[in-house]
Amino acid sequence: MTAGETAPLPELGVAGCRLVRLPVLRDSRGLLSFGEYSAHLPFAPLRYFLIAGVPSGSLRGEHAHRELEQFLICAHGSCRVVLEDGAHREQILLDSPGVGVYIAPMTWTTILHDSPDTTVLVLASDTYREADYIRDYPEFLSLISGTP
Amino acid sequence: MTAGETAPLPELGVAGCRLVRLPVLRDSRGLLSFGEYSAHLPFAPLRYFLIAGVPSGSLRGEHAHRELEQFLICAHGSCRVVLEDGAHREQILLDSPGVGVYIAPMTWTTILHDSPDTTVLVLASDTYREADYIRDYPEFLSLISGTP
Repeated sequence: MTAGETAPLPELGVAGCRLVRLPVLRDSRGLLSFGEYSAHLPFAPLRYFLIAGVPSGSLRGEHAHRELEQFLICAHGSCRVVLEDGAHREQILLDSPGVGVYIAPMTWTTILHDSPDTTVLVLASDTYREADYIRDYPEFLSLISGTP
Repeated sequence: MTAGETAPLPELGVAGCRLVRLPVLRDSRGLLSFGEYSAHLPFAPLRYFLIAGVPSGSLRGEHAHRELEQFLICAHGSCRVVLEDGAHREQILLDSPGVGVYIAPMTWTTILHDSPDTTVLVLASDTYREADYIRDYPEFLSLISGTP
Protein backbone atom coordinates (compact mmCIF):
# COMPACT_ATOMS: atom_id res chain seq x y z
CA MET A 1 0.00 0.00 0.00
CA THR A 2 1.37 3.41 -0.93
CA ALA A 3 0.42 6.56 0.93
CA GLY A 4 1.44 9.38 -1.43
CA GLU A 5 1.05 13.09 -0.87
CA THR A 6 -2.18 13.56 -2.77
CA ALA A 7 -3.89 10.18 -3.02
CA PRO A 8 -6.80 9.54 -0.64
CA LEU A 9 -5.59 7.87 2.54
CA PRO A 10 -6.89 4.33 2.96
CA GLU A 11 -8.12 2.92 6.24
CA LEU A 12 -5.65 0.60 7.95
CA GLY A 13 -6.72 -2.85 8.98
CA VAL A 14 -4.55 -2.81 12.10
CA ALA A 15 -6.41 -2.09 15.36
CA GLY A 16 -6.26 1.57 16.43
CA CYS A 17 -3.69 2.62 13.80
CA ARG A 18 -4.39 5.20 11.13
CA LEU A 19 -2.76 7.35 8.46
CA VAL A 20 -2.95 11.12 8.95
CA ARG A 21 -2.68 13.75 6.23
CA LEU A 22 -0.24 16.53 7.23
CA PRO A 23 -0.18 19.99 5.67
CA VAL A 24 2.66 20.64 3.21
CA LEU A 25 3.38 24.23 2.20
CA ARG A 26 5.61 24.60 -0.87
CA ASP A 27 7.04 27.75 -2.39
CA SER A 28 10.27 28.93 -4.03
CA ARG A 29 12.05 28.62 -0.66
CA GLY A 30 11.32 24.89 -0.33
CA LEU A 31 8.85 22.82 1.68
CA LEU A 32 7.41 23.17 5.16
CA SER A 33 5.21 20.46 6.64
CA PHE A 34 3.77 20.38 10.12
CA GLY A 35 1.61 18.61 12.62
CA GLU A 36 0.13 19.84 15.86
CA TYR A 37 -1.88 18.70 18.82
CA SER A 38 -4.77 18.00 18.48
CA ALA A 39 -5.55 18.63 14.82
CA HIS A 40 -3.06 15.98 13.59
CA LEU A 41 -1.49 14.44 16.68
CA PRO A 42 -3.90 12.77 19.11
CA PHE A 43 -1.40 13.28 21.95
CA ALA A 44 1.07 15.97 23.02
CA PRO A 45 4.51 14.36 22.55
CA LEU A 46 6.92 14.15 25.48
CA ARG A 47 9.71 12.50 23.47
CA TYR A 48 10.95 12.47 19.88
CA PHE A 49 13.49 10.28 18.20
CA LEU A 50 15.21 10.23 14.83
CA ILE A 51 16.42 7.06 13.10
CA ALA A 52 18.93 7.44 10.26
CA GLY A 53 21.86 5.83 8.50
CA VAL A 54 20.17 2.43 8.48
CA PRO A 55 21.92 0.00 6.09
CA SER A 56 19.79 -1.68 3.41
CA GLY A 57 18.26 -4.86 4.79
CA SER A 58 18.46 -3.80 8.45
CA LEU A 59 15.25 -3.67 10.42
CA ARG A 60 14.38 -1.11 13.11
CA GLY A 61 11.60 -1.24 15.63
CA GLU A 62 10.69 -4.91 16.02
CA HIS A 63 8.88 -4.33 19.28
CA ALA A 64 5.53 -3.21 20.65
CA HIS A 65 4.56 -0.89 23.50
CA ARG A 66 2.09 -1.65 26.24
CA GLU A 67 0.80 1.93 26.66
CA LEU A 68 2.92 4.25 24.53
CA GLU A 69 1.30 5.99 21.55
CA GLN A 70 3.53 6.97 18.64
CA PHE A 71 3.30 9.08 15.52
CA LEU A 72 5.77 8.30 12.74
CA ILE A 73 6.76 10.57 9.85
CA CYS A 74 9.33 9.90 7.14
CA ALA A 75 11.28 13.16 7.43
CA HIS A 76 13.69 12.42 4.54
CA GLY A 77 13.70 9.74 1.88
CA SER A 78 11.31 6.81 2.09
CA CYS A 79 10.62 3.87 4.36
CA ARG A 80 8.20 1.04 4.85
CA VAL A 81 6.43 0.47 8.15
CA VAL A 82 4.94 -2.91 9.00
CA LEU A 83 2.19 -2.83 11.64
CA GLU A 84 0.68 -5.91 13.30
CA ASP A 85 -2.08 -6.25 15.90
CA GLY A 86 -1.83 -10.02 16.29
CA ALA A 87 -4.64 -10.67 13.80
CA HIS A 88 -3.78 -8.30 10.92
CA ARG A 89 -0.55 -7.14 9.36
CA GLU A 90 -0.19 -4.15 7.04
CA GLN A 91 2.80 -2.64 5.24
CA ILE A 92 2.78 1.10 4.50
CA LEU A 93 5.14 2.99 2.21
CA LEU A 94 5.90 6.48 3.52
CA ASP A 95 7.73 8.69 1.02
CA SER A 96 6.67 12.21 2.00
CA PRO A 97 6.44 14.28 5.19
CA GLY A 98 2.84 14.91 4.11
CA VAL A 99 1.59 11.65 5.60
CA GLY A 100 2.15 10.35 9.13
CA VAL A 101 1.03 7.15 10.79
CA TYR A 102 -0.48 6.98 14.27
CA ILE A 103 0.67 3.78 15.98
CA ALA A 104 -1.61 2.63 18.79
CA PRO A 105 -0.35 0.81 21.88
CA MET A 106 0.04 -2.97 21.44
CA THR A 107 1.09 -2.73 17.79
CA TRP A 108 4.13 -4.76 16.75
CA THR A 109 6.07 -2.32 14.56
CA THR A 110 8.92 -2.92 12.14
CA ILE A 111 10.58 -0.14 10.12
CA LEU A 112 12.55 -0.72 6.90
CA HIS A 113 14.52 2.26 5.60
CA ASP A 114 14.70 2.23 1.80
CA SER A 115 18.17 3.83 1.88
CA PRO A 116 20.84 4.82 4.43
CA ASP A 117 19.84 8.37 3.45
CA THR A 118 16.34 7.96 4.93
CA THR A 119 15.51 9.74 8.22
CA VAL A 120 12.48 8.70 10.25
CA LEU A 121 10.97 10.92 12.96
CA VAL A 122 8.88 9.40 15.73
CA LEU A 123 6.92 11.41 18.28
CA ALA A 124 5.99 9.51 21.43
CA SER A 125 3.34 10.17 24.07
CA ASP A 126 5.63 9.55 27.03
CA THR A 127 9.25 9.60 28.09
CA TYR A 128 11.36 6.43 27.92
CA ARG A 129 10.24 3.55 30.15
CA GLU A 130 11.89 0.20 29.49
CA ALA A 131 9.02 -1.63 31.24
CA ASP A 132 6.66 -0.41 28.50
CA TYR A 133 8.53 -2.33 25.77
CA ILE A 134 7.53 -5.80 24.55
CA ARG A 135 10.57 -7.07 22.65
CA ASP A 136 9.63 -10.74 22.34
CA TYR A 137 7.23 -11.55 19.48
CA PRO A 138 5.72 -14.72 21.00
CA GLU A 139 5.13 -12.75 24.24
CA PHE A 140 3.40 -10.04 22.19
CA LEU A 141 1.11 -12.59 20.54
CA SER A 142 0.35 -14.14 23.90
CA LEU A 143 -0.45 -10.79 25.53
CA ILE A 144 -2.64 -9.57 22.69
CA SER A 145 -4.64 -12.79 22.52
CA GLY A 146 -5.10 -12.81 26.28
CA THR A 147 -3.72 -16.33 26.56
CA PRO A 148 -0.86 -17.08 28.94
CA MET B 1 30.97 28.52 15.61
CA THR B 2 30.62 24.79 15.03
CA ALA B 3 28.68 22.50 17.36
CA GLY B 4 29.88 19.01 16.45
CA GLU B 5 28.79 15.74 17.98
CA THR B 6 31.65 15.40 20.46
CA ALA B 7 33.12 18.86 21.02
CA PRO B 8 32.13 20.67 24.24
CA LEU B 9 29.11 22.88 23.65
CA PRO B 10 29.88 26.58 23.98
CA GLU B 11 27.59 29.05 25.70
CA LEU B 12 25.59 31.22 23.34
CA GLY B 13 25.72 34.99 23.69
CA VAL B 14 22.06 35.39 22.66
CA ALA B 15 19.63 35.96 25.53
CA GLY B 16 17.90 32.80 26.73
CA CYS B 17 19.16 30.56 23.89
CA ARG B 18 21.36 27.54 24.41
CA LEU B 19 22.78 24.46 22.72
CA VAL B 20 21.66 21.09 24.08
CA ARG B 21 23.56 17.80 23.73
CA LEU B 22 21.22 15.00 22.58
CA PRO B 23 21.96 11.30 23.00
CA VAL B 24 23.06 9.46 19.84
CA LEU B 25 23.03 5.66 19.87
CA ARG B 26 24.96 4.03 17.02
CA ASP B 27 25.21 0.36 16.14
CA SER B 28 25.31 -1.82 13.03
CA ARG B 29 21.66 -0.95 12.33
CA GLY B 30 22.33 2.80 12.07
CA LEU B 31 21.79 5.77 14.33
CA LEU B 32 19.06 6.70 16.80
CA SER B 33 19.04 10.08 18.51
CA PHE B 34 16.39 11.39 20.86
CA GLY B 35 15.25 14.18 23.11
CA GLU B 36 12.58 14.20 25.76
CA TYR B 37 10.83 16.47 28.18
CA SER B 38 12.32 17.59 30.54
CA ALA B 39 15.83 16.14 30.29
CA HIS B 40 16.54 17.82 26.94
CA LEU B 41 13.45 19.82 26.00
CA PRO B 42 12.43 22.54 28.48
CA PHE B 43 8.84 22.34 27.20
CA ALA B 44 6.46 19.63 26.00
CA PRO B 45 5.94 20.36 22.29
CA LEU B 46 2.45 20.89 20.90
CA ARG B 47 3.60 21.35 17.31
CA TYR B 48 6.43 20.16 15.08
CA PHE B 49 7.46 21.26 11.66
CA LEU B 50 9.91 20.04 9.05
CA ILE B 51 11.67 22.31 6.55
CA ALA B 52 13.29 20.68 3.51
CA GLY B 53 14.14 21.13 -0.15
CA VAL B 54 15.43 24.66 0.44
CA PRO B 55 17.45 25.95 -2.55
CA SER B 56 20.98 27.20 -1.88
CA GLY B 57 20.91 30.86 -0.93
CA SER B 58 17.29 30.85 0.28
CA LEU B 59 16.61 31.88 3.85
CA ARG B 60 13.97 30.37 6.16
CA GLY B 61 12.72 31.74 9.43
CA GLU B 62 13.38 35.48 9.35
CA HIS B 63 10.97 36.20 12.15
CA ALA B 64 10.70 36.16 15.93
CA HIS B 65 8.01 34.96 18.31
CA ARG B 66 6.54 36.91 21.21
CA GLU B 67 5.95 33.91 23.49
CA LEU B 68 6.67 30.72 21.56
CA GLU B 69 9.63 28.58 22.62
CA GLN B 70 11.30 26.43 19.96
CA PHE B 71 13.82 23.62 19.81
CA LEU B 72 15.61 23.12 16.49
CA ILE B 73 17.45 19.98 15.34
CA CYS B 74 19.12 19.36 11.98
CA ALA B 75 17.53 15.99 11.20
CA HIS B 76 19.42 15.42 7.92
CA GLY B 77 22.38 17.21 6.37
CA SER B 78 23.61 20.49 7.81
CA CYS B 79 22.37 24.02 8.31
CA ARG B 80 23.32 27.29 9.88
CA VAL B 81 21.07 29.08 12.35
CA VAL B 82 21.49 32.78 13.03
CA LEU B 83 20.05 33.97 16.35
CA GLU B 84 19.67 37.62 17.38
CA ASP B 85 18.36 39.17 20.58
CA GLY B 86 18.64 42.79 19.44
CA ALA B 87 22.05 43.26 21.07
CA HIS B 88 23.92 40.08 20.07
CA ARG B 89 23.96 37.91 16.96
CA GLU B 90 25.38 34.40 16.76
CA GLN B 91 25.64 31.89 13.90
CA ILE B 92 25.60 28.18 14.72
CA LEU B 93 26.47 25.31 12.41
CA LEU B 94 24.32 22.23 13.07
CA ASP B 95 25.52 19.12 11.26
CA SER B 96 24.33 16.28 13.50
CA PRO B 97 21.10 15.26 15.25
CA GLY B 98 23.27 15.07 18.38
CA VAL B 99 22.98 18.80 19.06
CA GLY B 100 19.83 20.89 19.29
CA VAL B 101 19.33 24.56 19.91
CA TYR B 102 16.74 25.99 22.29
CA ILE B 103 15.36 29.23 20.88
CA ALA B 104 13.86 31.54 23.49
CA PRO B 105 10.93 33.86 22.78
CA MET B 106 11.92 37.21 21.24
CA THR B 107 14.82 35.78 19.24
CA TRP B 108 15.06 36.81 15.59
CA THR B 109 15.89 33.55 13.84
CA THR B 110 17.19 32.88 10.34
CA ILE B 111 17.90 29.39 8.99
CA LEU B 112 20.23 28.67 6.05
CA HIS B 113 20.14 25.11 4.68
CA ASP B 114 23.54 24.06 3.36
CA SER B 115 21.89 21.91 0.66
CA PRO B 116 18.41 21.15 -0.73
CA ASP B 117 18.99 17.73 0.88
CA THR B 118 18.98 19.22 4.41
CA THR B 119 15.93 18.62 6.64
CA VAL B 120 15.38 20.75 9.73
CA LEU B 121 13.03 19.69 12.54
CA VAL B 122 11.55 22.29 14.86
CA LEU B 123 9.54 21.48 17.98
CA ALA B 124 7.37 24.33 19.27
CA SER B 125 5.80 24.95 22.66
CA ASP B 126 2.38 25.90 21.31
CA THR B 127 0.10 25.45 18.33
CA TYR B 128 0.11 27.98 15.47
CA ARG B 129 -0.95 31.50 16.38
CA GLU B 130 -0.31 34.17 13.75
CA ALA B 131 -0.52 36.92 16.39
CA ASP B 132 2.59 35.48 18.06
CA TYR B 133 4.78 36.16 14.99
CA ILE B 134 6.91 39.28 14.57
CA ARG B 135 7.79 39.36 10.87
CA ASP B 136 9.13 42.92 10.62
CA TYR B 137 12.75 43.36 11.72
CA PRO B 138 12.52 47.06 12.69
CA GLU B 139 9.41 46.21 14.75
CA PHE B 140 11.37 43.41 16.46
CA LEU B 141 14.19 45.82 17.34
CA SER B 142 11.71 48.36 18.63
CA LEU B 143 9.86 45.82 20.76
CA ILE B 144 13.01 44.31 22.23
CA SER B 145 14.52 47.66 23.11
CA GLY B 146 11.26 48.80 24.68
CA THR B 147 11.17 51.93 22.54
CA PRO B 148 8.12 52.74 20.42
